[in-house]
Amino acid sequence: MDERLKQQLQFILEIDKMKKILRQTILTDYSRQENDAEHSWHIAVMAMVLAEYAGPSVDINRVIRMTLVHDLIEIYAGDTFAYDTVGNQDKKEREEAAAGKLFAMLPSDQGKEIRMLWEEFDQMETPDAVFAAALDRLQPLLHNYVTEGHTWKRGVTSEQVRRRMAVVEKANPRLYEVVSSIIEQSLQKGYLKE
Amino acid sequence: MDERLKQQLQFILEIDKMKKILRQTILTDYSRQENDAEHSWHIAVMAMVLAEYAGPSVDINRVIRMTLVHDLIEIYAGDTFAYDTVGNQDKKEREEAAAGKLFAMLPSDQGKEIRMLWEEFDQMETPDAVFAAALDRLQPLLHNYVTEGHTWKRGVTSEQVRRRMAVVEKANPRLYEVVSSIIEQSLQKGYLKE
Repeated sequence: MDERLKQQLQFILEIDKMKKILRQTILTDYSRQENDAEHSWHIAVMAMVLAEYAGPSVDINRVIRMTLVHDLIEIYAGDTFAYDTVGNQDKKEREEAAAGKLFAMLPSDQGKEIRMLWEEFDQMETPDAVFAAALDRLQPLLHNYVTEGHTWKRGVTSEQVRRRMAVVEKANPRLYEVVSSIIEQSLQKGYLKE
Repeated sequence: MDERLKQQLQFILEIDKMKKILRQTILTDYSRQENDAEHSWHIAVMAMVLAEYAGPSVDINRVIRMTLVHDLIEIYAGDTFAYDTVGNQDKKEREEAAAGKLFAMLPSDQGKEIRMLWEEFDQMETPDAVFAAALDRLQPLLHNYVTEGHTWKRGVTSEQVRRRMAVVEKANPRLYEVVSSIIEQSLQKGYLKE
């Protein structure tokens, strides 16, 4: 086996670790925390199903690729809870180091390509990244709503959720209507505080 | 919210159940069985990383979509172990019924589109389906090898594995060299019987 294929297979085995990186979100049946591999799969399928809400300049195939790799660096950097202000202080630094380590496992052309997809996602500026980020925000919002605010109940406010969901509004006003309605209902039901 | 978007969101919540469908394959750290959502994510990333081994007529973006939805029907049909002859007798029937139920949740154009991707995958005839199926076979082979034949040790023979891996040979001879070498080494190490 040549060196290139060997590197690719080693990377494929390494990313099995995504299945052990736990997120704060729980499954809709309340049974346990979701992991990064499951979350990435879920939002990739969402990209397929919600493609019609993406603007004309969005390339859904690139969005799908982006969703598949957007959390890979958490293998080494861990998951940082969106509303954890302390954890988010050194997030960038931890993730940069993780990216350096992980993507170096691949042949350099591929490591560079996937790293660029991750960076593009992270910067949330291009239409593809905005749509991918909107899905990344929408999925845990849906989970939180059907699990009666499981993650929010540790003190998250509606204002914090609205700030985090701003990218959904940028991606598509109709999807943002869903977000607004969920936030309203969650406030009424006490899943979320003012 | 209109009926179409409501159906799409209900489908997105329903497929959360993929995270509870357990496969026979275990994680590479031996800790637990893998689930369908994790497996689907893993082979979708493999499609990105191993794209260069696909023939010129393969559309990798379609392969990625196919890998993401290829096991969805197992939400209702359950996972059938590849080497379980009894379970495989009524697999087709169980899966058809599951597909009817699941894809009917989506707006009809989308239900039809995803169902067609699943059927194409299942028939393993088109170049896209052959490549997707090869990844679907290769991933558990890698897992089995690094976990010292975990799933094979219940009595699977090298001949059975070779038959199951035939689609990898059809997809790409270089990937099949890896398969052959893993089977040889697994025989030598006693992970697999003759």
